[in-house]
This record gives sequence, structure tokens and C-alpha cells, in this order.
Amino acid sequence: MLRAVLCAVFLFGALPSLARESRGHVSVVLLGATGDLAKKYLWQGLFQLYLEQVSSGHSFTFHGAALTAHEPGQRQMFEVLKKLACPSDVSPDRCAVVKDQFLKLSRYYQLKTAENYTALNREIETLLQQEGLEEAGRIFYFSVPPFAYAEIARHINSSCRPRPGAWLRVVLEKPFGHDHKSAQQLAIELRTFFREEEMYRVDHYLGKQAVAHILPFRDQNRRFLDPIWNRHHVERVEIVLKETLDAKGRTSFYEQYGVLRDVLQNHLTEALLYLAMELPANVSSAEEILRHKLQTFKSLQGLESTSAVLGQYQAYASQVREELQKPQDYVTMTPTFAGVLIQLDSLRWEGVPFILTSGKALDERVGYVRVLFKNRAYCTQRESWREAGRSQCGTKQIVFYIGHGELNSPAVLVSRNLFKPVMPEGSWKEVADHPQLHLFGHPLSDYYVYSPVQEREAYSVLISSIFHGRKDSFITTENLLASWEFWTPLLESVTQRAPRLYPGGLENQHLLDFEMTGRELSFLLEEPVELLHAKTQAPSDYKTIQAKFRQSPLVSAWPEELIVRLASSGEFHLALSGGSSPIVLFQRLAMHHYGFPWRHTHLWLVDERCVPLTDTESNFRSLHDHLLRHVQVPYLHIHPMPVHLNRRLCVEEDRGPELYAKEIAALVSNASLDFVLLGLGSDGHTAAACTTTSSGTSKCPTSTSTPCRCTSTGACVWRRTEGRSCTPRRSPP
Amino acid sequence: MLRAVLCAVFLFGALPSLARESRGHVSVVLLGATGDLAKKYLWQGLFQLYLEQVSSGHSFTFHGAALTAHEPGQRQMFEVLKKLACPSDVSPDRCAVVKDQFLKLSRYYQLKTAENYTALNREIETLLQQEGLEEAGRIFYFSVPPFAYAEIARHINSSCRPRPGAWLRVVLEKPFGHDHKSAQQLAIELRTFFREEEMYRVDHYLGKQAVAHILPFRDQNRRFLDPIWNRHHVERVEIVLKETLDAKGRTSFYEQYGVLRDVLQNHLTEALLYLAMELPANVSSAEEILRHKLQTFKSLQGLESTSAVLGQYQAYASQVREELQKPQDYVTMTPTFAGVLIQLDSLRWEGVPFILTSGKALDERVGYVRVLFKNRAYCTQRESWREAGRSQCGTKQIVFYIGHGELNSPAVLVSRNLFKPVMPEGSWKEVADHPQLHLFGHPLSDYYVYSPVQEREAYSVLISSIFHGRKDSFITTENLLASWEFWTPLLESVTQRAPRLYPGGLENQHLLDFEMTGRELSFLLEEPVELLHAKTQAPSDYKTIQAKFRQSPLVSAWPEELIVRLASSGEFHLALSGGSSPIVLFQRLAMHHYGFPWRHTHLWLVDERCVPLTDTESNFRSLHDHLLRHVQVPYLHIHPMPVHLNRRLCVEEDRGPELYAKEIAALVSNASLDFVLLGLGSDGHTAAACTTTSSGTSKCPTSTSTPCRCTSTGACVWRRTEGRSCTPRRSPP
Repeated sequence: MLRAVLCAVFLFGALPSLARESRGHVSVVLLGATGDLAKKYLWQGLFQLYLEQVSSGHSFTFHGAALTAHEPGQRQMFEVLKKLACPSDVSPDRCAVVKDQFLKLSRYYQLKTAENYTALNREIETLLQQEGLEEAGRIFYFSVPPFAYAEIARHINSSCRPRPGAWLRVVLEKPFGHDHKSAQQLAIELRTFFREEEMYRVDHYLGKQAVAHILPFRDQNRRFLDPIWNRHHVERVEIVLKETLDAKGRTSFYEQYGVLRDVLQNHLTEALLYLAMELPANVSSAEEILRHKLQTFKSLQGLESTSAVLGQYQAYASQVREELQKPQDYVTMTPTFAGVLIQLDSLRWEGVPFILTSGKALDERVGYVRVLFKNRAYCTQRESWREAGRSQCGTKQIVFYIGHGELNSPAVLVSRNLFKPVMPEGSWKEVADHPQLHLFGHPLSDYYVYSPVQEREAYSVLISSIFHGRKDSFITTENLLASWEFWTPLLESVTQRAPRLYPGGLENQHLLDFEMTGRELSFLLEEPVELLHAKTQAPSDYKTIQAKFRQSPLVSAWPEELIVRLASSGEFHLALSGGSSPIVLFQRLAMHHYGFPWRHTHLWLVDERCVPLTDTESNFRSLHDHLLRHVQVPYLHIHPMPVHLNRRLCVEEDRGPELYAKEIAALVSNASLDFVLLGLGSDGHTAAACTTTSSGTSKCPTSTSTPCRCTSTGACVWRRTEGRSCTPRRSPP
Repeated sequence: MLRAVLCAVFLFGALPSLARESRGHVSVVLLGATGDLAKKYLWQGLFQLYLEQVSSGHSFTFHGAALTAHEPGQRQMFEVLKKLACPSDVSPDRCAVVKDQFLKLSRYYQLKTAENYTALNREIETLLQQEGLEEAGRIFYFSVPPFAYAEIARHINSSCRPRPGAWLRVVLEKPFGHDHKSAQQLAIELRTFFREEEMYRVDHYLGKQAVAHILPFRDQNRRFLDPIWNRHHVERVEIVLKETLDAKGRTSFYEQYGVLRDVLQNHLTEALLYLAMELPANVSSAEEILRHKLQTFKSLQGLESTSAVLGQYQAYASQVREELQKPQDYVTMTPTFAGVLIQLDSLRWEGVPFILTSGKALDERVGYVRVLFKNRAYCTQRESWREAGRSQCGTKQIVFYIGHGELNSPAVLVSRNLFKPVMPEGSWKEVADHPQLHLFGHPLSDYYVYSPVQEREAYSVLISSIFHGRKDSFITTENLLASWEFWTPLLESVTQRAPRLYPGGLENQHLLDFEMTGRELSFLLEEPVELLHAKTQAPSDYKTIQAKFRQSPLVSAWPEELIVRLASSGEFHLALSGGSSPIVLFQRLAMHHYGFPWRHTHLWLVDERCVPLTDTESNFRSLHDHLLRHVQVPYLHIHPMPVHLNRRLCVEEDRGPELYAKEIAALVSNASLDFVLLGLGSDGHTAAACTTTSSGTSKCPTSTSTPCRCTSTGACVWRRTEGRSCTPRRSPP
């Protein structure tokens, strides 16, 4: 240990950048210094940081760390460092000099035990003392699996905190948990060691130049976007990350996460937030961005299992079996492809579909965020004489092209018939000479195209942000938990769902194309399965039913037909029951039965609890929240039970049941409702259960019928009374 | 006169088709036999009819009539007859023989006086008698200006009715009136002479092959169309008739009618009905079609002046001045171009824009009815590898191409990614070899294209229908009046509106392109006018206002900003007044303020009348019909005044005002509403007027406040009471 310290001091001491005029010293500790991510991106990002900051007055040391012993670890690390590339905007001579310095400032450490951490800290302290350096701060970059987080965090907190006045920045890489609960646990653990402002959770997508430019673009083009960035003008938003690679070699990770956790919960959700959030007054204020993100999360409509289509490339299962040594009959449901439809319950975005999609083993590698605008124009001028790409009748769209794909570089595309965007001159340049590409239905020349003056790796961008303490591109704990809270119900609802198998690559053809119907997604093509059984009974086989019920004609037909027949008389009187079971029905009615004649429907309740209509226990409240909010039934057609007359509950003298009966008699011819939906309790009761009053006694809802009594099972039994809306009764045993 | 009869008998008598084996004789009288329409279409249509029916067993005579004296009239008419063309499906030899017969069967008559009509009738009678013919019926074709209708009708009714048992068919040409009132008068007049079933009102558009095929197409393709022929799948419908010709030489007619009456009220409306009507079980039943048409008229949302954009080609005014000998300062507002947005208030079509547009002096001559479907699909497969025109992500549309334009023939186009339509083999053929045309954004090869086996003139089709007594392609009186009823409010509201001037032809460029915003239409380009005055006061000049009002801070800002600020607290409490004046406001709020946070708004009333909420006199009912029906305010946020407790009106002991005060106190913090809208009566009263009770005494609405009294002007004066929603008061004199 002593040898190491001396060695470091020797190395560091020889360098001019540690001179006394320093604005402070920064120690960067990269945990997982020999791992894949470090090799591919992080060392390069740190080198880039050093290149940019070498003359800034700060001094630096870079401490690579891993579990590997010192000798092999050091060898592996320096092999990576030697291969660091010089960026094109730095002269080769200067780069060679700086790279040489960078190598001299870098060291490898085996960090395993508490003593290792103490020693690392002592070494940094010694260096600061010997060189007479002020400490600016320390960056600890966790490029390690999440199970190691807690222990490392504990060691850093107890042994490696910087001197008072200097900052600590801890950089964390996903996965940040597996669902809401595990993410919460991890967050609680980390909070015992670090303050929120010390943590930088990386979503490297936010470092992608096109994604990072979404908010600045919205800000700089406010005057064009303000009138159109809403549901009246936006037809749909597509947020897409397609990969050609599969999960081979990574199935031990992938099998635990799948595409929803790997890509949609984080990268694509973050892009959605940038797009959909209310624009902060200051788009570089991390606090404002966070606040607006959290508001946006609140307005996301909950996902149902029908909000997603899932796929799995065909070779995945055998890769899993091989790599994880599973038996031949092992079945994996992990999706490697997903399309998810997200809708927002906000004034701005209500009804606009946000389509998130990602997958492995697809036909191309590409990422983009596309905003497609509605066409509300009619062009009187003949089509062939319109200026292509300039006509107001042409497609209007804005695309943040993240990279790869046919364009093969980040870009911002704005349809020329929309507006010429304001772009920051220093960092984005207009592409005037358009390659012969056709993107999103149009030749590239139909767009204003901008690409970065200098392409930068996402990690370089983010490491620079960390150094500058800019938190706006990182995921706060609140942000993270809000995202898991949003995604967890879907994740749980699809665990047992078999994803559609797809061959991979170009062969997928149209297998993964999907469409929206209401709030549901479904694949466009039927699953290519062979039927094991010949066609069984046709539905018409079940159609026969007796034609009289209690001396009244019984109308019998398939639902749509029945509704049309019943509703054709003008008004349709529908009575619904309360309780929890009809909620699913209400939701289906609201979401999927657009054809239902809501405007001509009167809604009645078959039972109600003795609570105000606004009470969460109220049957009406449930009907209201799950059905009425989503359909347009005229106010005067809605008939809650009068259980709360004169602002008091179910008082006999208020004559609620009589009032309701009168209302029915006044509006429903023959007091004969068109359709009555009765639930069935597990004890066989229907229409109403007893409620327990505040005094502790059970009683039937007084608002529906007077002669009723509670049974021992908690059901109400009523006597049929003339003029009532329905006759709740026990079903036969 | 005698000479004429003898001559006719001589002529007719020489022909074999008047032989005794006849199935009955048909006399066709063409009134206006030397006019433009007769020359251009009607004689040809009659000749076509004769060609088809010459061997049917019926015998014919054709009686051309006009005001012109016998000699010149006969000469003019026979010049037209000599030029009659032979259809391509008849051999030239046969055609020559039949044409010769046709000429021999045709005669010219001067029809002016009652005696002329009596003589005509006598001649027909004599012929029937001499030849021993049964009479099948008589067709009177009115190709005359509408002012002449009544007199001719009287003569026909009194002198020219056929023998008992034979039919009378009177064919009328538009214009059928000028607005709802004049159309009604004309209808009443005609009804005194003819029975409804005797009248055939021609809209020659319904004889156009593509238009005539809309209903058969919908019928024969029910299984494809049933799921998609509705608002969930149709994005928009365009019904278009563009002309290159202008009104030169016809301004005396055109100046009275304009494009709305000339084309939209009849042709385009009829096409809309065929498209939008519920499909009759039997699409050739005139009764069923009429019933469905009338239902569709009922569901059309009323037009406002903002539903239309209007234009006038630049040369029109000088043409009018010249032809009608008007002074140089004569100004005409007659539109020669119109775009109109029609929406339906039906389950099937709610929210789908139907765009009707027509104009003279445009860049091309073309007519079509286009149904564009929504794209609800996301195609995962890379764009460049999709099969163009077959991908489910491509545009889907059905076009009934009426004729002319780039295709230059009638056609039915169906996008290949939609379905292969069922078409009647005998009359429509698939066009397999596609010209290099691009129509509606796609190469013709992206469509299934069908064209008629035999192109037929609309008038030939309709004359054949008249002969066969098929009424489904004609406009009944009810149909006509419903259409005028729909169009008249718009016609009246735009009489004083200056249409946009356009140069005509290709030079129009984008001047006539328009767009929809909510239910409004507006031109896309600003009117190219020079401003006479420099920019006057900017709105911000008016913004200053005192910051306190009755010791409370006064929030002052421009409307949108104000709403955002007020609504940002979560809930927005809005109180609205009753009466008739706020209706316009409600309508504007409902139609144009999409951005209003309805879902977070509570609605209260500042006054109410002592009537049930469903009564048309109720303020709440007005609010309901004009605002609530159109916006989504949650049921539990709507707070009508409790004037109708216990099913009785404003009874003191029901304590309505107290209840309402409690409700406000419970929901509105500090009982302080965010926005209270008070009307102002012409007598200076606000918030509520006295109502006259059934007993004849005036009283204030008891539901709002107890200490109030009626003034002599009929206004209510109230004393401010704590905890009330607002303080209605007299405004200062």
C-alpha cells in the first residue's frame, strides 16, 4: 500500500497542472475501470473532459478501480488508456501531449475491502497536502452492477468524502432497480449514504445530442411552437429506438430486464417527458425541469396490459437456455420488442397518442423522436402544381433524429411547410446539400435539416455536465420513482403474456407492425399460428333463447345489434349496479364502445350506498370516475340516486326512494328500463349489499326500496314494488 | 292549328312503332326545346331513350315546345335534332334508321296561351284515337326559367293531363327557389297542380355515374365498410366541384344565385347525403333513401358564417356591370368560390369534417368525393423496405371521381391497402393499365381503379329513370326544403360579407387554400391588402387597471393568461348567468376555447328561474344545451341551483338557497368564486330578472337570496349576504 502511495505521489508530483495557481483539485474515481462501459465510453469521456479542462486552472487525478488485483487490473486499464482516440477538433500534436499527461495522472486501484477505500482516501489526502492543493471535489463513477452499489456507497460515505467545502459527486448507472419497490429500496439505501444533490443518475440517452436539444429547441422556437404544441395540432408522437443486435452474450442481464425495463422505462420515457412537459421558463434549471417532469408523470394515463404489444426474437429462448444453462423445456416470456401507447390526461395532450417502441434484432438500427402534425388544410390548387414539400397540405413534422439509420448522424428535421427553426449557430449547422434520402415519407429536401457542428458521444457530454455540476440531464430519485410507479403495473400485468415470436432482421416484415384502436394496441397481422382444432361452435349456435321473460318479450341479439335495436327508439335507459366488479365493465364501455349511443342514453343506478355522491365509497362516484368522465352523456340524462337530500344521508322523511321512483316514472315509459346490469355477489346477492352505518348496525340502502332486510350474508333482499326501476332479488341457489 | 294537327297525324301515322301491338303510347313534351340545356343534353337524352325503348313495345311522340313562333322555332329545333350523335354501342346503320324515325316522331309547338295547351292536348288525343293506342303516360320536361313554372303547371294541370289510368310525369330543373321561403312558396304552388309522385326534380349530379354509384358501392361493400364507415376511422370527407369556366354571359342568372345556391346547396349536399346517410336496407327504394336523407339533414350541425370561406374571381364584378348595365361603382358580393365545413351531430360522424368546395375560374375542371381514412398504424419495418401503396401505414382512401380532371373519366378509386372492392361487373370494369398519374398524393397504381364500361351522360341516365318511373335519383319536395332550411342561415349571414378576390386560373396559386380551426374555416394566406393606417394602439396599452376591488386583490391579465393563472390553483370555479345573451358566449366557449381547463372547472349559476332544470326556460337548461353538451366538465363539478327540490318548485321550506350556500361553502374556499360572469339587462339589472309566477305576481328567484325585491323595471335588487356566491346588484346609472 505504502509503495502505491509513494508511486502516485511521484507520478503526480512531476506534472505542471498540479501547480499552486490551481483553482482546486478534482479526483475522479472510476469504479469498474476495466468493464465494458468504461472501455467503450467512460475513459474516452474522461480523457475528453481532461482535454477540455487541462487549461482551466483545475488539476485532476484519475483513479481507475475494480475488484481485479493490482497487476492484471493495471495492465488491462492501461491497455484501454493507450487506445484513447483524439477528437477531430484537437491537433494531433497537442492531443499526444495531453494524452501523455492523462496517462500519467491515471492510476489503477484494487478496491475490495474497507481498508482499500481508506488507503485510496489517504492517498488523495497526501497528494493534496504535499502539493498544497485546495480540493475542489471528487467524482465517483459507479460503472458496476447494482448489487454492489450499497457496499461501495457505504465505503465512500465513511472513508472517501472530500474535505469540507469540496463537493462529492457520485455517478450511478442503470439499472436503478427492477420495479417500483426495488427502486425504492435502492433509493432508500443510497440516501443513507448520499444527499440527493450528490447523486448523478445517468440516462445516457439524455446525453445524445438530438435528445439533449429537445428542450433548447422548444425554448428557442417558442413563438412557432406555442400555438401548435398541443392536441389540436399534434396528430401523434413516435419515440423509437430500433436495434439490429440481439441479446446474445448478455442474456443473464437481459433475461431479468427485457426491453420494457431496458429501454422504455428510462430512455424513451425521458424523451417523452422532454417533449410533453410544460416548457420551463428556464430550460437549463434542473429544479424547474424536475418539477415539470414530475407534473408530466402525474398526467400520464395508467397503462393497461392492452396498452402494449410485445415480441421476442426467435433465437432468444435458445440463447437464454444456452447461456443460463436452462433445460430444453425452459420457456422465457421476456420481451425483446415492445410497442406501448401512452396517453396524457392533460389539457395540452389529451387524446394525442405517444407511441414508444423499441426492440432487438430488428431490420435497422435507428433512434428518433417524431412529432407528426395534423393536416387541417384543404388546398384548392391542383396537386401537381403545388410546390412539393412547401404546400400547407403536405405532411408537417418535427423529428429529433438521434442517430444511426439512413441518415447516420444526429439531426433535427423540420418540415419546410412548418417553419424555419431557430438553431444555436455554434453547435448546430444547417445541412444544405441533401443526400437522396427519403425519410418519414418525404425526401430530405422537404425538411430544414440541422446536424451538430461537432458530433459528441453521449458520455462525453454527460461527464462534462457532471464536472460542471449541471444536474438537468440526470435522473433524480423522485423522477426515477415516478417512472417506476408508472411502468410497474404494466410490467406486472404482462409477466405471464407470451410475446409474439419474430424471426429477426428483415425477415420480420410486417409481423411487428401494430395499430391503435381506442386506447389499445394490437399487431396488424394475425399471429401466424396453426390451429390445432378445427373451427368449433360458431357463435350463432348460442343465440337461441326463450322469447318471453315474466310475460314480457325478451329481446335477444348480439351486443352491437341489440344496442342498435334498443337505442333506435330514441332514448336508451341503462341502469348500472355499484360495487367493485362493474369497474372493469365501465372502463371497457368507456374505452372501447365508441359506437355506444351515449348521447341518447339515460343512466340510472340500481343501488347506492348511504354516502355523499362524491364519497369514494359511492357507487355513483365509481360510475363517475370510471365511465362518465370518459363519455359524453348529457348532464340531464344522469340520474344518481337521491341518497343525499338536504345535505343529509338517507333520511326517511326526505323520501328519496319516492323521488327516484317519480323521476323514473316521469322519464321512462312504463318505468321499463331498456337494460339493467346487475352484479352477483359471491353469496348470491345481487344489486346491493348492506352497508354498515356509523353506529355499527347493518342496513340496506334506504334510497332504493323500503321493504328490504339484511340477510346474514350481508345481502339485501327486497320485495318487488310497482314503479321501481328494477327488482333486485336473490339469484336461485 | 288544324294544319299542324293534320301534319302531325300524317307524320306519326306513317310509322310502324305506332302499331296496335303497342304496350302504350308515351308523349314527351320538352318545354324550352330550343334552349341551351335542351340543345346540349336533353334532346340527346331523349334520343338515347328512344334508341333503348324503340323495340320495347311502347310507342312515342316527342313534342318540342317554346315561346318562339312556329317557323323559326321548328327550324332551330330540327337543326339540333339533325346533329344528334350516335352512341358508340349502336351500329351506325341502325342508328341512322332510328334517328330518322326519331325525327319523324318529333314536332315543334309554340306554347304560349291556354289555347296552345288545349290544342296540344287535342292533338295527342286525336293521335291516340286515330291510331287506336292505349295511353301509357306523358312526360313534361320543364327546361324553362322558374318564373314560368307556375303558369305552365296550371296549363298542364287544366288542359294536358293524360287519360285516366295513364301517368303524368313533370320534370323540373333547378333553381328550385332562392332560399327556404321562396322554395316553400314554389313547392306550395306546384302542389296545387301536381301530386308529389308526379314531380321529378332533377339534380343532374345524381345522374353522374360516380355519384350514382355511391349508394350501390356502400351496399355491395358493406362487409368492408361497416367497421370503418364512421368517425373512428374516417379523418375527413372532401366533396369538390372545380370549374375553369367563369360566369361570363350568365351573370344575370349567376348574380342572383352565386356558388352556394348554384352548386353547394344542391349537387354537393346531395353527394354528402349519399355518403353520410345510414345505409338503407334496399338502396334502390326511393322511400327508404328519402327517409334516410331526411334523417341525415336533421343531424347536420347548423352552419355559422365562420363555417365558410368565400371568394370571387376578379373579373366577375366588371362582367356583372357590363352584362347587367350597372354603374361603375356597383359592388357585387356574390361568391364564385366557396369552401364550407359541415359537421354532423350523429354517432357515426360526430367530429368528422365534411369539406364542400366549389368555384369558377379555378385552375382545373374536376369533381370528386373523397373519403380519407385515419392512419392508426405504426409500421416497425423500415420505410424504404415497405411495399409502396400496400403498407398499412400508407394513406387509405376511397374516391368517387366524378369526371374531368387528370383522369378525365368517371372512376371509383380504392387504396390497395384498404380492400379490393366488389363492383358490378356489367357496368364497371377494373382499369389494369394505369397511366402515369399521381392522384390524391399517390400514383394511380396504389389504387384499385374502376371505370364505367360505358360512359353515360347524366341526363341520359336521368331521362331513362324518369321513363321507368324510378324516383330514387330525384329531389323530393321534403328533401329540397330540408336542404334550403339547412343552407338559408348561412346564405343570409354572408350577404354582406366581401368575398376574397382571386385572379382566376393558375394564378390563384395558394390564395384559395383554407384550413379548419375547430369549427371555423379560414384562408391559409393572409389577404394581400395594403394597410391604410399604421399599427394603432397595441393591446398592452389597455392593460392597466386598479389592483384592488372591494379590498380584494384584483387579478388582471389577458384572457388566456388569466385562465392559466386562475386555474393553476387546481380547481377553477366559474359562475355563469342565465338569460339569452350568454348563449353566444357559451357557444364561443364551447367551440373555440379548447384550451379552457374544463376538467378542472366547477360551474355554478348566479341566478335561476323557478322552473324544472329540464324546462326550456331554465337558465341551467340553456347552459346545458349550449355549453355543457359540448365540453367535458365532470358531472360532480356541475352545480345547478336547487330550485326543484322534492319535485316541487322554489318552496321556501325546502331551503334551496341555504343548500346552495352550503354547497358553495363546502367546495369553494372562502366561498370566493374565481370568475363570475354577470349579464346586464337593458334596464341596468344584472344577474336575475323577476319571473312572473303562475298566479300572475312578479317575484325574484327564491333560490338565490331571500332579501330581494322586484323593481318596477322587472329587475331584482338584492342585499349582500355573507357566504353567498356573488352579490347581484344594480349597476350605477
